[in-house]
Amino acid sequence: MNHRPAYAVAAFNDAPPTRRALAKQRTRQRLLEAARRLFAERGYEAATVRDIAAAADLSTGAVFASFADKAELFTEVIVSDYEQLAERMDALDLEALPAREALMSIFAIAYQNQIEQLGLIQAAISFSWQRDHTAELRSRQGMKLLTALISAVLQRGVQSGELSDRLDVRLTTEMLWDCYMANYRRAIFDHWDAKALCERLSAQIDLMLAGFRAAA
Amino acid sequence: MNHRPAYAVAAFNDAPPTRRALAKQRTRQRLLEAARRLFAERGYEAATVRDIAAAADLSTGAVFASFADKAELFTEVIVSDYEQLAERMDALDLEALPAREALMSIFAIAYQNQIEQLGLIQAAISFSWQRDHTAELRSRQGMKLLTALISAVLQRGVQSGELSDRLDVRLTTEMLWDCYMANYRRAIFDHWDAKALCERLSAQIDLMLAGFRAAA
Repeated sequence: MNHRPAYAVAAFNDAPPTRRALAKQRTRQRLLEAARRLFAERGYEAATVRDIAAAADLSTGAVFASFADKAELFTEVIVSDYEQLAERMDALDLEALPAREALMSIFAIAYQNQIEQLGLIQAAISFSWQRDHTAELRSRQGMKLLTALISAVLQRGVQSGELSDRLDVRLTTEMLWDCYMANYRRAIFDHWDAKALCERLSAQIDLMLAGFRAAA
Repeated sequence: MNHRPAYAVAAFNDAPPTRRALAKQRTRQRLLEAARRLFAERGYEAATVRDIAAAADLSTGAVFASFADKAELFTEVIVSDYEQLAERMDALDLEALPAREALMSIFAIAYQNQIEQLGLIQAAISFSWQRDHTAELRSRQGMKLLTALISAVLQRGVQSGELSDRLDVRLTTEMLWDCYMANYRRAIFDHWDAKALCERLSAQIDLMLAGFRAAA
């Protein structure tokens, strides 16, 4: 599966990028890395554009040449996270696994990766309730890289007869995602580790699928 | 059921409150009302203590005489919301209803009430991921007024034989709550109304309970 966003695919299909385009891409990358670090350490509100520029050893002008505003910069940090996670999940041989195991492989990668940067997750979820419509839509694009994998696993489960064809794949995908996200509260406030989060999600998957097992 | 927090109950059991205590209570109430309005209009970050004091026609000193900081003030706004919702839900004759209908009565009240103050909900959920441990614990106390009702409905469903005794009541309660909260994203970004939110939660309840119906 190809998770590259449309603009990256377009770039690959065109002529090789110019030196200027490459420099711009490197600046962008440096800003994203500095931004990720500061947002994770300080949260969305406290990390200023000025601090992020300084941390990347660039001017604030360079930030606004690459991103419309702080909200767009933060959204791109989050979306690039989704892209990296989706790449790692794509490397799994999901099709060889039963639905339950495939789902747990996906979520284990997510929790193991994100628990290392809880400050960023915390800022991202908090921000996700406040952002504007444009940032929400862009972020959903990123999120869909992961929910598409979840949805495909459930769909295969139905096709193989492991899961009942009465299962609402879309609703189940969205509920799994909501529970997956909500569980981070346990990590943040109750210091749960990735293993504890996986165990909880595993119980949640069992509960949701209980009425839709082939045996049911 | 008695939903008054411990300190309120203590006040009721003691001698009648002094004039000074009553004045303090009224000041507190005025601040909570002004704070609720400004947080709903501007969000948590943008609503300053100075603005809230001015809106209540009080000094900022009066704010800090009643609340430790803005975070505590906001938390008390949210908790008083939980208390009011719980009171309205308590007025329902939940015990007379089958579990599914009782759950939907609870959530319908919540959605119908909260959809009128989406700005506040949005600020509350956003803030809930950033607050400190003390504010989280206080807020959970408030939340438990509602989750206790949900949990009691499920428990009665199991006792009456409507639901299987294999149902994990606590996990189901928490998942229902997570889905209930996550659905507000549809109201905020996709303009769903209370009816659409209720229909979605109804489908989510059916999915979660599908494996735990007496008939299953």
